[in-house]
Amino acid sequence: MHVLVIGAAGMIGRKLVARIAADGAVGGRKVSKLTLVDVFAPTAPSGIPTEAWAADLALPGEAAKMLAGKPDLIFHLAAIVSGEAEADFEKGYRINLDGTRLLFEAIRAASYMPRVVFTSSIAVFGAPFPEKIGDEFHLTPLTSYGTQKSIGELLLADYSRRGFFDGVGIRLPTICIRPGLPNKAASGFFSGILREPLAGKEAILPVPDTVMHWHASPRAAVGFLLHAAGLDTAPLGARRNLTMPGLAATVAEQIEALRRVAGDKAVALIRRVPDETVMKIVEGWPRTFDAKRAEALGFRAEKTFDEIIRVHVEDELGGKVA
Amino acid sequence: MHVLVIGAAGMIGRKLVARIAADGAVGGRKVSKLTLVDVFAPTAPSGIPTEAWAADLALPGEAAKMLAGKPDLIFHLAAIVSGEAEADFEKGYRINLDGTRLLFEAIRAASYMPRVVFTSSIAVFGAPFPEKIGDEFHLTPLTSYGTQKSIGELLLADYSRRGFFDGVGIRLPTICIRPGLPNKAASGFFSGILREPLAGKEAILPVPDTVMHWHASPRAAVGFLLHAAGLDTAPLGARRNLTMPGLAATVAEQIEALRRVAGDKAVALIRRVPDETVMKIVEGWPRTFDAKRAEALGFRAEKTFDEIIRVHVEDELGGKVA
Repeated sequence: MHVLVIGAAGMIGRKLVARIAADGAVGGRKVSKLTLVDVFAPTAPSGIPTEAWAADLALPGEAAKMLAGKPDLIFHLAAIVSGEAEADFEKGYRINLDGTRLLFEAIRAASYMPRVVFTSSIAVFGAPFPEKIGDEFHLTPLTSYGTQKSIGELLLADYSRRGFFDGVGIRLPTICIRPGLPNKAASGFFSGILREPLAGKEAILPVPDTVMHWHASPRAAVGFLLHAAGLDTAPLGARRNLTMPGLAATVAEQIEALRRVAGDKAVALIRRVPDETVMKIVEGWPRTFDAKRAEALGFRAEKTFDEIIRVHVEDELGGKVA
Repeated sequence: MHVLVIGAAGMIGRKLVARIAADGAVGGRKVSKLTLVDVFAPTAPSGIPTEAWAADLALPGEAAKMLAGKPDLIFHLAAIVSGEAEADFEKGYRINLDGTRLLFEAIRAASYMPRVVFTSSIAVFGAPFPEKIGDEFHLTPLTSYGTQKSIGELLLADYSRRGFFDGVGIRLPTICIRPGLPNKAASGFFSGILREPLAGKEAILPVPDTVMHWHASPRAAVGFLLHAAGLDTAPLGARRNLTMPGLAATVAEQIEALRRVAGDKAVALIRRVPDETVMKIVEGWPRTFDAKRAEALGFRAEKTFDEIIRVHVEDELGGKVA
């Protein structure tokens, strides 16, 4: 099987490629070739013949080049993230809407039937919310990023319905714990208050302990992508987009999990610096979902925050807490 | 006030322009100028200074020409209809998605704050449905037309949220009784079984009497557009798209209303010719809604099918039944 990963140099993309290389297969089918693309040239893993190059998906003709080898499975992870798509209206629409549409059009023009796995986001939802957000709740994004992801979902469903490809859209929870340096994303603190203390560093908490949000680990996200790649799509019917399972947890619950894994010393590194701007943004975000469809289809996320922290300690810290 | 109507030569567009010309005002504000555009040059009404021309909204630069006079109020009714958008994939996306986006982009570039009223459709919804479709039910269109309208709604909401214009999207019910000649739209029979017998002609009924659907008259549709034009949008928040009220009626109820208005002789002109293809299409369509939000905002539709028929007899038949 030939697998194309668009957005292969991003955090999830790199983990996905590493996992495919380690397994040598996806959904029980041997992977014989990888094509990896991103705005920066992705790194080829060892063990699988790989072509990797840098490309701008929104430039005409670029998607066709990626499809030249008619990949059987296409992961479309490339996106301008939430904060940047809000700050740069044109760039967000160019990559997240035009780029996605150019890819889908190139697949249609190539006249074959690959599986397409598209990463959407819970940013397609916007407050006010019911107590739990069900699988039939409408999409009312409160950001341009969420709007672009919603449009991607609609296109994916229509192109699948028309028989141009076999698509599955997965709405990722907030990924926690994001490895790497702290960033300025409004959601950054959900990872920061765990990642930094686990490394012996101070972290800022800008919201009250009572804030609840919907999380899954990077490892779970890779699991969602691989499960979507091998999924029998017949039971999906025309509804090709799925809210992924996750863990609803308050900041207080995150902190108690940190205490159990790394002790009071780690918790003491969290500094409370309330930030009205961040609080206001977070108020519009989903808290908890009832992701029945995805669960029935076999998608799995972590059940406790202790597990989410343990995944980080294993995958990023070589099993050691500072 | 300067009013631009895009799609002014269509059935609803012509009725809207006639009503504006008759009233001389919209939402209590005097109309001093009309700009009318469609693929065929619309007819100018008497009494209001009017510019009218034929244009293809999907050609670059055309939307900017329509906005040259900075119209205060823009009705965007132009669309490739459901059947044609399904038959011609590229044409549907070109007009319904690219055309709409080019219009919205042109307004953004013009840097002012017009009211934009966009006609969406209940085709944004697809089966399976709950008993009544509420205001928070997700959009799962089963046609490319419905997909394109859903995307138009999302763009309208995002452009409004970003402050590029002040948009209201209205999801029209099936318009009944459509005047004019019978057409091949799958929904054509809902109008045909009334319009044709009222004119003394035979009509074909391809589905069982038990089929229920969601209707409003052309006059009600014009009323929705004018109400949306004058609406205080503050209570809408970020949710700019509204399911319009309508009348849920079975085919049997339509026929009984016809009997009350035009007698057994008219009903006898309906020929039952079951059509599996039409039945299959109609199965995926919405039956009934709970359009609470729009009703609370003052949108009004007919309450009985007798009323819907009476509107047709008054507006199209000069008050006379054949």
